[in-house]
Amino acid sequence: MRLISLGHGAGGQLTADLIREVFVSRLGNRYLDQLSDSAVVPAPGERLALTTDGFVVTPLFFPGGDIGKLAVCGTVNDLAVAGAEPLYLTASFIIEEGLDVDELTRVVASMAHAAAETGVAVVAGDTKVVERGGCDRLFIATAGVGRLLPGADLGPDRVRPGDRLVLSGSVGRHGVAVWSQRPGVTFRTPVTSDCAPVAPLTSALVAALGGAVHWMRDPTRGGLATVAAELGEQAATAVLLDEEAVPVDAPVRAACEMLGLDPLYLANEGRFVGVVAEEAAAQAVEILRRAGQDGAAVVGRVSDPAEADWAVLGAGAYLRTSLGGIKPLLRLAGEQLPRIC
Amino acid sequence: MRLISLGHGAGGQLTADLIREVFVSRLGNRYLDQLSDSAVVPAPGERLALTTDGFVVTPLFFPGGDIGKLAVCGTVNDLAVAGAEPLYLTASFIIEEGLDVDELTRVVASMAHAAAETGVAVVAGDTKVVERGGCDRLFIATAGVGRLLPGADLGPDRVRPGDRLVLSGSVGRHGVAVWSQRPGVTFRTPVTSDCAPVAPLTSALVAALGGAVHWMRDPTRGGLATVAAELGEQAATAVLLDEEAVPVDAPVRAACEMLGLDPLYLANEGRFVGVVAEEAAAQAVEILRRAGQDGAAVVGRVSDPAEADWAVLGAGAYLRTSLGGIKPLLRLAGEQLPRIC
Repeated sequence: MRLISLGHGAGGQLTADLIREVFVSRLGNRYLDQLSDSAVVPAPGERLALTTDGFVVTPLFFPGGDIGKLAVCGTVNDLAVAGAEPLYLTASFIIEEGLDVDELTRVVASMAHAAAETGVAVVAGDTKVVERGGCDRLFIATAGVGRLLPGADLGPDRVRPGDRLVLSGSVGRHGVAVWSQRPGVTFRTPVTSDCAPVAPLTSALVAALGGAVHWMRDPTRGGLATVAAELGEQAATAVLLDEEAVPVDAPVRAACEMLGLDPLYLANEGRFVGVVAEEAAAQAVEILRRAGQDGAAVVGRVSDPAEADWAVLGAGAYLRTSLGGIKPLLRLAGEQLPRIC
Repeated sequence: MRLISLGHGAGGQLTADLIREVFVSRLGNRYLDQLSDSAVVPAPGERLALTTDGFVVTPLFFPGGDIGKLAVCGTVNDLAVAGAEPLYLTASFIIEEGLDVDELTRVVASMAHAAAETGVAVVAGDTKVVERGGCDRLFIATAGVGRLLPGADLGPDRVRPGDRLVLSGSVGRHGVAVWSQRPGVTFRTPVTSDCAPVAPLTSALVAALGGAVHWMRDPTRGGLATVAAELGEQAATAVLLDEEAVPVDAPVRAACEMLGLDPLYLANEGRFVGVVAEEAAAQAVEILRRAGQDGAAVVGRVSDPAEADWAVLGAGAYLRTSLGGIKPLLRLAGEQLPRIC
């Protein structure tokens, strides 16, 4: 067992060795291999999508993924829901002295796998090491650059009354999978994270439906409810989620009942919500199901002022409960579980 | 005093409030203000420079700068020495529960100042909060996108025998400034960090000298010696630094003697080394001095096989000491001081 030392982060020979052995050997590509201060890459068209995310998930490894897979998928998904094709990633590692190099290597291999699956190249990186106790094992911050898809025209200003909310699959798996690793928690049926790149799905939707896709977002921290609340706020409209239509896998539902969690607020890392024109909603679900997303469903809609029962609702998100009532859906107010991603 | 809570990182209402109050109010611009999953920005030409860096400096505030200024300058400088004009930054914050919101605000204000000074826009961000003890107060990872300057043609393959190493100013200030904040350390003459964006300087050099600038790098972790060693390795040539020509400010020299540090290995955050054609070296120094870099100097050169005393040297970096001897310069092997940046 080799352990990370402070020297691995000092920018000298040990850093160079670590970069070569662990990072370049697995993530290498023509851009990263130059080991320059910056990677020089071809610009992908006239507009770029840029995003960043920090990952502090604990534990580093969980059913269905690890921090490396998450760091790639999380940033790829932020590009995807902006209507972009993810192309380049950068990765910044903050490592606690004493981390096993083999664990770091597993994480990097997992990043390489997720990047290859999505067709993105990790083109630049950085490694810092902090003394024992200075951080909790390993944090990764990734940034992403994508090419805007032709035909993508997304934004809260494009959301229209009557639009449907299409969800790509069941909610809550990532949150429950990470919960399940906490000491003392045991589930009858193990739940694996949904962590996956959604870019192939969002690209398929935009390619097929073009301007009929009005807005997309991935329900990570804060879950589907928070996405609905943000949509209502940004589009200055009322958004109605239909509780019975939201797919929740049985083991996730059981875990939520046991732990007192609300699946609508649990984090997902391989799902997205698309707001599409009413007439395109059925086709959107069909496209997602054909792509293997069995749980894809219309889960809500945007307020249509012509409907009588909407008149009383202001801008915001609302849940039509399984009992038929309507209650406001606020953003997540506190913290269900820290360090879910 | 308001303190950061775990809820500030949960992706819900508290996160939204923090983003608005602390980040958008200071860093805001037309791209960041959209608060979308990705910023959509115009592509700056046909080739992009991409880079990333993580910042874990301790203490967060030091003479001449803080982690925010450093996070902007460090990434801007990596773009600059790649021959690019820095345009867009992303910033990922990892915050320890309990950090004073006022301290975070000071850091963000400092980032905003450095970004404005350099003409870069922070277009995307992310905030994570870890529980007390999960990290040491605040880490920031920035990524940068730049436009390659017309006329910039840089790379180790462009380095030629006889090329001169031009250093933009004195070495060691950042390293000593951070050292000076350690408990129990007191210097007679306070040293401030050199932390600053070098982009105006590198742009001026490339604009004036074009293809006569062959390679650039900023001597951060590992210092000037490590940059020389990397140059020798990447260009497969012998690089000779002239110890007497390397400017070291008197207070830095005094601190190094007291603490047993070698200024050639100390980190700098506002300097760069340019490898330029021999006939352009004097002009390069002149340009830098006119831009206010009084310490700019030719500090070394690339091996010319025609010179007799070079015949015995292989690829690598060497120091001609003030006593006239020649000794190999290795990359920094261990760690002078952790968490310098």
